Formats: sequence, C-alpha cells, structure tokens
Amino acid sequence: MDISSYILEVGQQASKASVEMARANTATKNNALNFIADEILKNKKSLLSANEKDLKQAKENKLEDALLDRLGLNDDRIANMAEGLQQISSLTDPIGTIINLASRPSGIQVGQMRVPLGVIGIIYESRPNVTADAAGLCLKSGNAAILRGGSEAIHSNQAIATYIQNGLKQAGLPSNAVQVINTTDRQAVGELLSLDKYVDVIVPRGGKGLIERISNEASMPVIKHLDGICHVYIDKYADIDKAVAIAFNAKTQRYGTCNTMECLLIAEDVAESVLKQLKPKYDEAGVEIRGCESSRKLYSDIKAATNDDYATEYLAPIMSLKIVGNIDEAMAHIAQFSSQHTEAIVTDNLENAQRFLREVDSSSVMVNASTRFADGFEYGLGAEIGISTDKFHARGPVGLEGLTSKKYIVLGNGHIRQ
Amino acid sequence: MDISSYILEVGQQASKASVEMARANTATKNNALNFIADEILKNKKSLLSANEKDLKQAKENKLEDALLDRLGLNDDRIANMAEGLQQISSLTDPIGTIINLASRPSGIQVGQMRVPLGVIGIIYESRPNVTADAAGLCLKSGNAAILRGGSEAIHSNQAIATYIQNGLKQAGLPSNAVQVINTTDRQAVGELLSLDKYVDVIVPRGGKGLIERISNEASMPVIKHLDGICHVYIDKYADIDKAVAIAFNAKTQRYGTCNTMECLLIAEDVAESVLKQLKPKYDEAGVEIRGCESSRKLYSDIKAATNDDYATEYLAPIMSLKIVGNIDEAMAHIAQFSSQHTEAIVTDNLENAQRFLREVDSSSVMVNASTRFADGFEYGLGAEIGISTDKFHARGPVGLEGLTSKKYIVLGNGHIRQ
Repeated sequence: MDISSYILEVGQQASKASVEMARANTATKNNALNFIADEILKNKKSLLSANEKDLKQAKENKLEDALLDRLGLNDDRIANMAEGLQQISSLTDPIGTIINLASRPSGIQVGQMRVPLGVIGIIYESRPNVTADAAGLCLKSGNAAILRGGSEAIHSNQAIATYIQNGLKQAGLPSNAVQVINTTDRQAVGELLSLDKYVDVIVPRGGKGLIERISNEASMPVIKHLDGICHVYIDKYADIDKAVAIAFNAKTQRYGTCNTMECLLIAEDVAESVLKQLKPKYDEAGVEIRGCESSRKLYSDIKAATNDDYATEYLAPIMSLKIVGNIDEAMAHIAQFSSQHTEAIVTDNLENAQRFLREVDSSSVMVNASTRFADGFEYGLGAEIGISTDKFHARGPVGLEGLTSKKYIVLGNGHIRQ
Repeated sequence: MDISSYILEVGQQASKASVEMARANTATKNNALNFIADEILKNKKSLLSANEKDLKQAKENKLEDALLDRLGLNDDRIANMAEGLQQISSLTDPIGTIINLASRPSGIQVGQMRVPLGVIGIIYESRPNVTADAAGLCLKSGNAAILRGGSEAIHSNQAIATYIQNGLKQAGLPSNAVQVINTTDRQAVGELLSLDKYVDVIVPRGGKGLIERISNEASMPVIKHLDGICHVYIDKYADIDKAVAIAFNAKTQRYGTCNTMECLLIAEDVAESVLKQLKPKYDEAGVEIRGCESSRKLYSDIKAATNDDYATEYLAPIMSLKIVGNIDEAMAHIAQFSSQHTEAIVTDNLENAQRFLREVDSSSVMVNASTRFADGFEYGLGAEIGISTDKFHARGPVGLEGLTSKKYIVLGNGHIRQ
C-alpha cells in the first residue's frame, strides 16, 4: 500500500473508532488505561530490546547526546510510563459532564454537555514516553488518536503501540482508537496534515521549527505554542526578598523549559537594591546576563543586550535584563517581545497587580509567583498534553478539558417555539 | 491608496485599537453602545436617505424581492437596531470575569480570567442591521471589529459606520475599534482573509456558498456553520400529542431558519398514529412531504425521498420523512445526513433520552422540545453573532462568551517552584 492510501486508511479507522470512544463509559476507559499499563510492565524486556535497536541506530547516525538521552528507556522510565497511565485513569472523566443547566422563560432547560473532539493527531519528536502519555490523555477524553513519533524512536513506538492496542482490546474498546504510524517516511506527516475530513485537531510537540512547519501545513486546527519568552517584572512596590527569590527561581530552577524566565524587568527605583542581592546569586549559578545601558552602569560585567536578545528564548543559563521607568514601560516591553506564554509581576501594590493581571495578554499571568508554575500539573489539571499560546479554543496548559468540546443540550416537556 | 495597503492599514488600526478595547471598563463600553444607539436614532433621516440610494441601485440591478426586503430600512427597523444596541449594553460584561480560582498544594491560587480575542472580522450579506448588531457584540466583548457588508448595502453601512465611530468617540474609545470597509471591491475580502497577523478570527454570516468560500480562504480561525439539516426523531415511547406538536412546530414555525426541521424520523411502532394526526396538519400548512417506502404505503400522496432529499436543507415548506425501526436506526440516519446543527428526540423513555443526548454529535441536542429553540436568545445568551457547528472553540449559538478567550492567572505571595 502506498503512503497516501495507508494514512487515509488510518484516518478512516480512527474516525470510525472515535464514535465508539465517544460512547465508552468511564469504567471501560479506565480499565483500558490500566490494562495498557500492565501490558507495558509485562513486556518490559521486549520494549527494552526494541529501544536498544533505536539507540544502536541513533548512535550510528551520530545523534547528539541530549537526544540519545531522551530516546533511551530503562526500568525507571518504563515504570514511570505505566504510572502515568494509571494516574490518568484516576482523573475525573470530563466527558458527559453537564454545566450551566438552567431554566429559561420559555420553560425549556438549557445546559452544555462536554464531548470529545473526535480524532486527535499528535506529532512529536524523540521521547517514546510521549506515545503512552498522549495516547492515555486522548483515550481518557474519549477521543481516538493518531500518533506520529520521531523516526529515531520507531521501534520503541511500534512496541508501545502493540501494548496499547492489546490493552484497548482487553477493555473491549476498538484497537484502532490509538494508531501509531508505522513508517518513518516524511510523506506520512504531509498526508496526515491534509486529512481534515478525518482528523479534528493536531497537537505538535517538539521544537519551534517542527511546530511552525506543522501549523503552516495543517488543514485542521492546531493546539500549539511556539516558544516561551517569559518575563518577570519587579515593580517599584515589590518586596525585595520575594522579588529576588522569584527572579532567581524563574531563571535557574530549570533552564530548558518553556516557562523559564528569559528576561527580567526591574523598576528603576528598586533596581539597585534588587540587583545587589540577585546578581551574586546569578553569578554563582553561572548565569550570563545581557542588559540595558542602565544595568551596565551598575555592573560593568553585564554584556550589552540587543533587541535580538530580548526576542530570544535562550533555554540556557543566559538571560536578558532591562531597567524600566514604571509598570507601563514594563508592559510595553512585554507587549513587544513576549511570546504570550507566561509573565509575572512582583509587587505589593494592589492596583499594579490588578493592572498587570488584566492588561498583560499572555496565556498565564502571575502575581508574586515564579513563572515555573505554568504547568498542567501545578495548575491541577492532573496532566498536560502541551501549553497553548493561542487564544482560540484552549489557552495555557492543556489537560483533558482542552481535548474536549461542549454541545448544548435542551430538555423540554413538549415545548414548542411561540 | 490601493486596496491591499488600505486593508493592511485597517488591520493595523484595528489591532492597535484592540489593546485599548481590552482595557476599557464596562461603563465606558456601555456608554459607547448607548451613544451609538442615540446617534442612529438622531440621524434616522440621513440613514434612510443612504438606504434609499442602496435600494435604488438594487432595483436597477434587479435584485430579488427577498433580498430587497432584507436590504430595506424603515422607522421600525431603525428603532430595532438602536434597541438591539441598548440590549447589548444591559448584558453582563464577560471580560475580567475570574472562574475556578482555587488553591493548589504548592500554595499558589490558580484561576482563569476571561479576555477578548482581539480583532474580529465579520463578513456578511445584505442586511444593514448586522452592521450595528455585530459591532455592538464585538464592542461589548472588548474586541475591535472590521466589518465587511454586502456591496448592495454600502451606503447604508457607511452611514451606520459614521454613527458607530461618533458614539465610540463620545465614550472616549478609539473610533478605529469598529471599522467598516469602504470599498465594494471583492479584492478587499481576499486581503482581509490573509491578514492573520492582525485579525484573530473571522465570522462569516450569510449563505452556504459565502461561508464555504471564506472558510477555505481564511488564514485565521473561522466561527461558522454551513447549514442546518435538523432532525426530529419521534421515539416508540413518545407522547403522541407532544410529538405532533413538536414536529409541526419544528417544521412550520418558520421555514427559512437554520434551526428548522428538515427531516422527520418516526419509530415504526408509532408511525401510523403519529402521522394520522400530523399529516393533515402538514397538508393544511402546504408542506410537501418526501418520504421513504413505508411512509408511502401509508399515504400514497407522499413523494419518494432520495438520498439527495435527506441531505438537503430545504429552507422551504418541503421536508423529508423516514420511518425507522428503532433509536439506533434513527441515530445512524442522523450521523449520515445531519449537518450537526440541532437534533431532537421526542420520548418518555429515560434511557433513550439519555442515549440520544449523549450519542448524537450535534451542536444542540434536545429532548421533547422543538429544534426552533436553538437560538442565542432562547438559550439566554442575550444575543447571538451566529451558530457554530464546529467543535473547536465555540459550538452552538455564539454570544458574547464565544468572542472571548480565557487566560490563566496565578496569585502567589513570593512562591517559588520546588
């Protein structure tokens, strides 16, 4: 079968399975999740040997160490994969929930029922644990999933696909509810992205390049975020100790995550006293600071920041710094350079806190907390398929609810329109 | 200025105005709505003379009577236009509403704040009242709007645009928050649809052809419905009197609306007793019935329905009819032919009611009520910019909330991630 016909068949099968998935009750879906976890644990040995094939190939292809690390599985990572599925099974099922049911003057009752989106396509890079994780979230939210992992993980992903499909079958659900594309040919991605008749939404997970390419090419909606150029603004009315703790944590707790602070803005009235405490901490952590003129007058070892710096997601121990006149200047800088992922203000002034919350146009806006909290688990979603910086449909960390829609339901007793 | 530069300028101006609109408080927005209503009433004479120009041109171009009727304004219609704006001013402002604010184990509080989408483009056909109506909804929801009305209404729409911009200015809001495209050149639509950098969403209002064209061409998300092929299914366990009342109302209360029933499905066990009461009523109303074999055995004057009939939105006193074995057969027919707008079941059986509610994949699903209730006003949204049959973002009647997004807000007191 050629790739075009193969992907078409995958799409049609997913679409058919999605009808059964939408009707599946919570117990059945939870059973499937637990059966899949069991299958993964039971077949640990064969999963490790499939993974070994991928690693061998990857080493031959001279993959970077960081990518090799992401690709590799071991006992711990397999246990985590299974545990992740069990955790998803313990989350509240969003499907069928009825909200806002209220009586209208006509006598009808109107509410909204949460329903699945249908078929979700997920395109991701090397980590094989995404296969189990994404499949689990789609399954619990009553959707069918089509997964396309990185070519370097093909053997691991195919193995995991088998365990998933076995688990689905044991629970009495259609095995086509989760399909993992079995070819590494790039044409498969293009075909999948053109299949808007059968695929309702695409979720890309990976680097900015991958996500931009997919967004441009997809014929269906995409849940995505491009990058996280996150800001912390230390206001004139900030508690200095809190400000120092937050700005240090937001940059250094992890460098490679999308909710890491990339640019620090400080009100000029407190810049000196903040930096006096904060700069030695950054120095000790080995963080390189690229700052504005005024900051360089305070510390001559701060490098000059360009506009390119302010527009960069470093994902590394590098950050930009700007001393600003006031909150308006800070919000103007954010409006110009932020990727609308997450911004935080540190202040004890109620008006400035409220203005920042209201006026900053990002998917997460924080007062007196580290940007590192922008995360589905920290927000209590229980799980996360990604973080959306779009305003349409889901915004911010996307858990089960972001993979659903709502339909209106109307309850009458023979009511007709007058 | 050429059209491309003109539309680009309109987009940039709208984008700039949208920042101010997002920050505008409720009183200011309500003032603007009421000022615009006043302006419209005050300038009734000049609006009527602008409308006269459009009507004269339209008659010369031999526009159909139905379109002429939509295009025409009079004292009543102008009063309704103003009243509509006053009503929007009395609706609750969704912007700034905070929902689900809850404490997390880390100590932070997480919630979601409702925010505007940004810039909304609305493309519509002849009725000039849409100009005021759509502008009012966008304004109240804190968005900027770019309106492109039908070319036959250009003079009326330009006049209304002046009143809107005057009202905005009187309230201290940017007049570019509502811009009406001032050219009838079709190129303007294409340019607008390519402006995803400045326009966040497009709402087309009009015939299926217009909406399909716009959906295919738009580079940004579209809130749309293509057509309303709505079904009523009369279950074996239906109360016959209610069934007759609902099926008659759903078809005949208005023929030209998208929530009108186009196909009636009846369980075979009750078909004869339902049709005995219902058929004479349809006959009296002049409704032509195109039915399945079994229905034609009961009434020889029923014409034969083809699959094309079942797939047609008649918007006329014509309907299709099918006698089915049971609820499964009814839902299978709906899955095949429905446009996923609105479907209703008439039944006194709880299980069948629940199955229908859960399993029918339409934007509105009803039990024992007429499909004609699928409407923003009937649902209590207070207003409606359209009905969405998509699952992504808004679904069903779209009021103010559908023109908004949510952002996460996090409140801490110096919290850092551990």
